[in-house]
Amino acid sequence: MQIEILRLNHRIARDKRITTHVGLTSRSLGASAIYYSGDKDSEMESSIDKITEKFGGPFKIEHIKNEIQLIKDKKKQGYTISHLTMYGLSFEKYVKKLQKEEKQLIIVGGEKVEPEYYQLSDYNISVTSQPISEVSALGIFLYSIHGIKEEFDNAKIKVIEQERGKLLKEF
Amino acid sequence: MQIEILRLNHRIARDKRITTHVGLTSRSLGASAIYYSGDKDSEMESSIDKITEKFGGPFKIEHIKNEIQLIKDKKKQGYTISHLTMYGLSFEKYVKKLQKEEKQLIIVGGEKVEPEYYQLSDYNISVTSQPISEVSALGIFLYSIHGIKEEFDNAKIKVIEQERGKLLKEF
Repeated sequence: MQIEILRLNHRIARDKRITTHVGLTSRSLGASAIYYSGDKDSEMESSIDKITEKFGGPFKIEHIKNEIQLIKDKKKQGYTISHLTMYGLSFEKYVKKLQKEEKQLIIVGGEKVEPEYYQLSDYNISVTSQPISEVSALGIFLYSIHGIKEEFDNAKIKVIEQERGKLLKEF
Repeated sequence: MQIEILRLNHRIARDKRITTHVGLTSRSLGASAIYYSGDKDSEMESSIDKITEKFGGPFKIEHIKNEIQLIKDKKKQGYTISHLTMYGLSFEKYVKKLQKEEKQLIIVGGEKVEPEYYQLSDYNISVTSQPISEVSALGIFLYSIHGIKEEFDNAKIKVIEQERGKLLKEF
């Protein structure tokens, strides 16, 4: 399964940590790329890249300027487009169908999302119809359609699960 | 099921939005309270309280000074204590057991978590053994043990699910 994320309208001052968390969540639950629009944020990119270098990939982060064009290109390439929004239909209705889709682009909104995104997306999907968090909404959604990613390429470090305490294995 | 969250070591400058997202995630997936330590942050409390006033509760946020005492008190009251950490055993091993626990306190760490918390907790639990996000880790965990909360008391606003667009019902 090829999963990619599009994070709309990143603002350096306000969103640095939130978008970082969106990126880390994407990587650990099976996505291979995150595109983001809004402010270009090299520091945020670097913090994601450092995690990928240490804990493995593949995972890339890329700043883009034309979100609509990206969505249209992905559609042409056969991607299913899901837009996460608290106003959409519950993700639980879509899980079985999306578990079978080979190529998926998931749109994660920012403060305000223009109507065009609702129109362009194949599905407008909510994870709870409540104000939640784009980070946890994406996490729950990815966990449901993909599950946890077990294998990472070129990892230098791996966590070995423990009942108590911390154990890191270095390669 | 009575679920409460303890968020450790909140720092106003760095964590304002992350802790807000932890709070909103908690509320929308069945928790009835979030306690937090570190900096007291009235603005962050107010943003959570406003959501609860509009979209319903019950949900409270409370700043505390003595985290260890809170954990010990909750243990005495029969709460099961789960500490979310990337170093713990996978949550998937615990889901069935925890779905049956009536009273639960879930600890969400900050930047660095002292060994004492690993010792005091009944379970040290990971949601992926990767650097993820405390927001999505908590979301996936709550979704797995509780599921989405459908009914909120005293809501003034409710989102009505739509395939496209936005619909809010006011009471």
